[in-house]
Amino acid sequence: MATPQLGRPTLASIAAAAGVSLPTVSKVVNGRQDVSPATRAHVLALLEEHNYVPVTRRSVAPPRPLVDVVFTALDSPWAVEILRGITESGLDVVVGTLARDPGADWVQSVISGGRQGALVVTSRITAADQRRLGSSHLPVVVIDPVDMPGQDVPSVGATNWAGGLAATEHLVELGHRRIAVIGGPQDFLCSRARIDGYRAALERAGIGVDPELVRHGNFHHEGGYDQARLLLELPDPPTAVFAGSDEQAFGVLEAARQAGLSVPADLSVVGFDDLPMARWSSPPLTTVRQPLADMGRMAGRMLHELITGGQLDSQRMELATSLVPRASTAARPR
Amino acid sequence: MATPQLGRPTLASIAAAAGVSLPTVSKVVNGRQDVSPATRAHVLALLEEHNYVPVTRRSVAPPRPLVDVVFTALDSPWAVEILRGITESGLDVVVGTLARDPGADWVQSVISGGRQGALVVTSRITAADQRRLGSSHLPVVVIDPVDMPGQDVPSVGATNWAGGLAATEHLVELGHRRIAVIGGPQDFLCSRARIDGYRAALERAGIGVDPELVRHGNFHHEGGYDQARLLLELPDPPTAVFAGSDEQAFGVLEAARQAGLSVPADLSVVGFDDLPMARWSSPPLTTVRQPLADMGRMAGRMLHELITGGQLDSQRMELATSLVPRASTAARPR
Repeated sequence: MATPQLGRPTLASIAAAAGVSLPTVSKVVNGRQDVSPATRAHVLALLEEHNYVPVTRRSVAPPRPLVDVVFTALDSPWAVEILRGITESGLDVVVGTLARDPGADWVQSVISGGRQGALVVTSRITAADQRRLGSSHLPVVVIDPVDMPGQDVPSVGATNWAGGLAATEHLVELGHRRIAVIGGPQDFLCSRARIDGYRAALERAGIGVDPELVRHGNFHHEGGYDQARLLLELPDPPTAVFAGSDEQAFGVLEAARQAGLSVPADLSVVGFDDLPMARWSSPPLTTVRQPLADMGRMAGRMLHELITGGQLDSQRMELATSLVPRASTAARPR
Repeated sequence: MATPQLGRPTLASIAAAAGVSLPTVSKVVNGRQDVSPATRAHVLALLEEHNYVPVTRRSVAPPRPLVDVVFTALDSPWAVEILRGITESGLDVVVGTLARDPGADWVQSVISGGRQGALVVTSRITAADQRRLGSSHLPVVVIDPVDMPGQDVPSVGATNWAGGLAATEHLVELGHRRIAVIGGPQDFLCSRARIDGYRAALERAGIGVDPELVRHGNFHHEGGYDQARLLLELPDPPTAVFAGSDEQAFGVLEAARQAGLSVPADLSVVGFDDLPMARWSSPPLTTVRQPLADMGRMAGRMLHELITGGQLDSQRMELATSLVPRASTAARPR
């Protein structure tokens, strides 16, 4: 246990305790390499023992790290949620999109852009891209990767499987048995995980999975609309639909309206994401919340840690999803 | 007819114009030889005709100017539309919000941030702020200012008055006479202009303005919801509502649903903005389109011009709004 001390320890008092000069302590605090390993270890131990907190560091520290954040496209309100979190992580972020020039080599432009690191949001990163990023030694964190990145690329995602399970269990508890799911593109891992959660919930409830009720569309409005139209035309249509995104769920609502069905009296609908507009739909949408801003903030902090030479606790973080019940779900119609 | 594009041509748009694949255009741009001479000549002619500037130039040309973009808050899908346009303007933008630290002196941090310029989105800029920005000689362009900035601060907005006129004339043409308007906060000039357009349309149609039908709320969902509830409880309720924003319009849709009214059979609703989710509402929302991405792009180009020592054609640009009729408006119920 540290000796109780009067007053905050200073670099000078640490230097005195360590028997080294003040500049030497300063070098250790600032992470400089021109200090012998033994001296560094001794000073670090004393700094820790005395709970040294470099309070003044903020005012004299270098400016916030300047990093790139690369979105596939800025075409979704989803992006602004993640971006808000990133801006709260102590980084200065330069925003760019792959959409600006689909032919461009984004990995090269990130590597040669002169920034201190990069955040990459929902981009397909090929094995070759990973190797190039790895050998560049540029700190990179991926947010919500489409494919699972290699072990050497840190990433932040959400608990998609648990979200699919919670959404489906909610519908089962309301008495639904004919429950459809609309996933995103079949090769998106996040989508696969949600559908696996759906299957698990049905199996736990002793309800067989009807392959006719498992659909795939793009994550956008028309993906939900098109699949919902097909589902509602089935001889034995579903009484509830779990959509792969809020945007898809809005498409389901519109297909129901056009079919003369009332939501939730005739059809229950659950989305995924909890974008701001989930609250604005009519009726307000029951959905699975992804903590998008938290994911952005977490990724930003991980990148900050990497830039300042720290170690990550884990290369892969998954933040919890949670069911947000609103007015688009109700008991199964009799 | 398609609007002439403000945006930079992309490889994809060139490929479409040339009737060849994206990889083929990419090969031509990158000087690869495995393209037929005729195709190469055709693509090169189109690239020149469209003033295509390759993004890869970044590595040889001077770096893109690094500027701050300051949002009041990243709390609206509205922000991502503007941001997309800005990222297409040839600038590298560092995104920040006033929300990050409400007590902070954002003018000071912009001036002392070491960037080459700044874009300010919908912030109240006081006369004192304007003087400080002016004397700093930092190039600044304001997007959609709440108050009309002084002559010496360049700004980009939209034709709000014309938008209010078009929305109201659309409802008049559908036979409506009891038309309500919900504006934003009374001191927002954009809101004032829209309501003046509403008044002008009614007067041209010989319909008196009923002060009971002119309301103010915040631009958010509850602003529309709360005012619509009051309007629908009137002894002689409106048959149509022109809302000050899409988000407000979604609140009106929800108030109508809760009152057992069908949109558009019982009540017509027009929004303002044309956010992506206007297409996703059920029914899809008739609204007045603000060219938010174009506004961002225009402001970015103006700032680029100022940074590189050029002159602006005008200190104040207003881009055209346009009515987008969808399914939330119909003939007046008999």
